[in-house]
Amino acid sequence: MNVPNSVHHITLLVHDLDAAVDRFQKVFGFEAPIREDLIDRGVRGARFPVGETWLALVEPTREDSVPGRHLREHGEGVFLVSLGVDDLDAAVSSVESAGARMTDAGERRGMDDWRIQDLEPDDFFGVLFQFTEDPTGKQPT
Amino acid sequence: MNVPNSVHHITLLVHDLDAAVDRFQKVFGFEAPIREDLIDRGVRGARFPVGETWLALVEPTREDSVPGRHLREHGEGVFLVSLGVDDLDAAVSSVESAGARMTDAGERRGMDDWRIQDLEPDDFFGVLFQFTEDPTGKQPT
Repeated sequence: MNVPNSVHHITLLVHDLDAAVDRFQKVFGFEAPIREDLIDRGVRGARFPVGETWLALVEPTREDSVPGRHLREHGEGVFLVSLGVDDLDAAVSSVESAGARMTDAGERRGMDDWRIQDLEPDDFFGVLFQFTEDPTGKQPT
Repeated sequence: MNVPNSVHHITLLVHDLDAAVDRFQKVFGFEAPIREDLIDRGVRGARFPVGETWLALVEPTREDSVPGRHLREHGEGVFLVSLGVDDLDAAVSSVESAGARMTDAGERRGMDDWRIQDLEPDDFFGVLFQFTEDPTGKQPT
């Protein structure tokens, strides 16, 4: 069994990344975030460290991307909760052995080359959980 | 400035707490959660430690409670993201000085006597953030 060992990141979808970054810095006193765009995923992104978790803000750059569709259908807000695991393949196997599903999207790379795989929201009370195996060792704490 | 220092807890709303607890234990390999009901808030609750964050599952016991209304209107899923702060009063002052709002609900007590105050979702891209000052020193890590 590969028990998740952290909330690796929480991703919020926003319409205007720069406005959101500005608000989070002013209100919470965060320092300037790390910015990173994922062309293939169709997003502009920025992330703040909050303890051992990244709080990521994401603005879709294309309406036909997964995040773009989600934003159109559900509006701004929490998009996903990513659980940190030591071994992505083992974590996926554990989920499937327990009779729950991953999405069909398969593995992809997130910011900073994180290895990511999504769990099927229908099996988790509507929440889009995902696993992140972070090879960088650069988690905030 | 009182910068949040952790994601103290993430709360999910579910219709059936026992079924949800069972699923999270089976799928993620979590040990038995800490269970706690909040009569005034109108919820049954259970929480799992994930790194330094509590992953809390909550089932409303009354339709007219805040969580009960949220579940009826939005369905199951992420209810709120609570940021850990050292000093709740100072954190609230910082938010208001920056021109953002807390909700009118005022301060309340959460599980394990956490001091809690909610931020106005309209000022945070629809996300219900809250601050928790945790006097117990019993954060998971």
